[in-house]
Amino acid sequence: MPVGTNKRTSMIQQKTIQIPQYKRGFHLITAEILRELGSLPETGIVNLLLQHTSAALTLNENADPDVRTDLDNFTNKLIPENDPVYTHILEGSDDMPAHIKSSVFGVSLNIPITNQRLNLGTWQGIYLCEFRNHGGSRRIVATIYS
Amino acid sequence: MPVGTNKRTSMIQQKTIQIPQYKRGFHLITAEILRELGSLPETGIVNLLLQHTSAALTLNENADPDVRTDLDNFTNKLIPENDPVYTHILEGSDDMPAHIKSSVFGVSLNIPITNQRLNLGTWQGIYLCEFRNHGGSRRIVATIYS
Amino acid sequence: MPVGTNKRTSMIQQKTIQIPQYKRGFHLITAEILRELGSLPETGIVNLLLQHTSAALTLNENADPDVRTDLDNFTNKLIPENDPVYTHILEGSDDMPAHIKSSVFGVSLNIPITNQRLNLGTWQGIYLCEFRNHGGSRRIVATIYS
Repeated sequence: MPVGTNKRTSMIQQKTIQIPQYKRGFHLITAEILRELGSLPETGIVNLLLQHTSAALTLNENADPDVRTDLDNFTNKLIPENDPVYTHILEGSDDMPAHIKSSVFGVSLNIPITNQRLNLGTWQGIYLCEFRNHGGSRRIVATIYS
Repeated sequence: MPVGTNKRTSMIQQKTIQIPQYKRGFHLITAEILRELGSLPETGIVNLLLQHTSAALTLNENADPDVRTDLDNFTNKLIPENDPVYTHILEGSDDMPAHIKSSVFGVSLNIPITNQRLNLGTWQGIYLCEFRNHGGSRRIVATIYS
Repeated sequence: MPVGTNKRTSMIQQKTIQIPQYKRGFHLITAEILRELGSLPETGIVNLLLQHTSAALTLNENADPDVRTDLDNFTNKLIPENDPVYTHILEGSDDMPAHIKSSVFGVSLNIPITNQRLNLGTWQGIYLCEFRNHGGSRRIVATIYS
């Protein structure tokens, strides 16, 4: 695999990113993440870990906002509130489905860095998936290894 | 991104962790993983790869055990046994749903390391999701890069 | 964690892999990926990022092809076409379910490398999950850090 070999000094950088409260739904936060990361190394990987159990991070379409609306509506139908099997109900009807969705969509994302940019596809953006009605501010630990 | 920069010598450590048999369901194994990993580097990332196709690893709530019970019951309803579309049925009615759940929840987990600790959120723990009735012992390859 | 320590010079290698068009369904592409990666380092991790929002990468059984068929049929039932909540319908009835499936199965995969081989379980293989009827060729960014 001779293409793009990088033998420079290895480095790990880490930063906690505070995301302001978003309403329940799927939200494009690529620009926000890029602004917080600042200048990127020539080649590497960034890991984003969302430190919560009722929200998620995923990659999906960065263009038509209907994709985010449909994702939200379909997910609410697939993993509904008030399912009769739930016993963890003290924190509200949106809480247990939020935990399930969090594990289905995942909270830890790895994205390659190439030529000092996130090497995403043309149509890919980073989504914050907020599954609580009032989830509050969210924290992401960004780790860049290069 | 000037916060938390780490320019010390880079290192990769790897270890296979054997997890004893758990019954079908979602199980908190953070303490077990930490004990097996031993002392952690100052800054880094750990990747945990579960080497199986009928179980999964995920992050979710480390407090109320009801979350684990509800996750198990809801997942069994969402991806049920004996669905009429299944043709891969020779290994038991719990086998094909276990394969599907394994890909939905995922088997490869990345967690940042900060100040020699896993940098998880306050409420996050590592779950072994055992989808077979008798899954036996499970193996995880842990890779730490620092 | 003294086992498998690797203090040699750190390196990051990166390559874009072009995957020819596959028909809609789940496809085992381990051999194809290995051929494209070429010789692997002694110890490390490979990240594979699929640069698309209507397909996915996952690990699952590499033996019985019925697992792939069942995964496809069940997933089509779980996340169906023409659901009444969809509004993003201009690109065809297979488009919006493909976006949802892409985020459920995920597009970024991390696999450890040990003794110059992918350290997968005996039964694990890499799947390309093609969710479009005519998805065309797909691109994967492979990043190896060692």
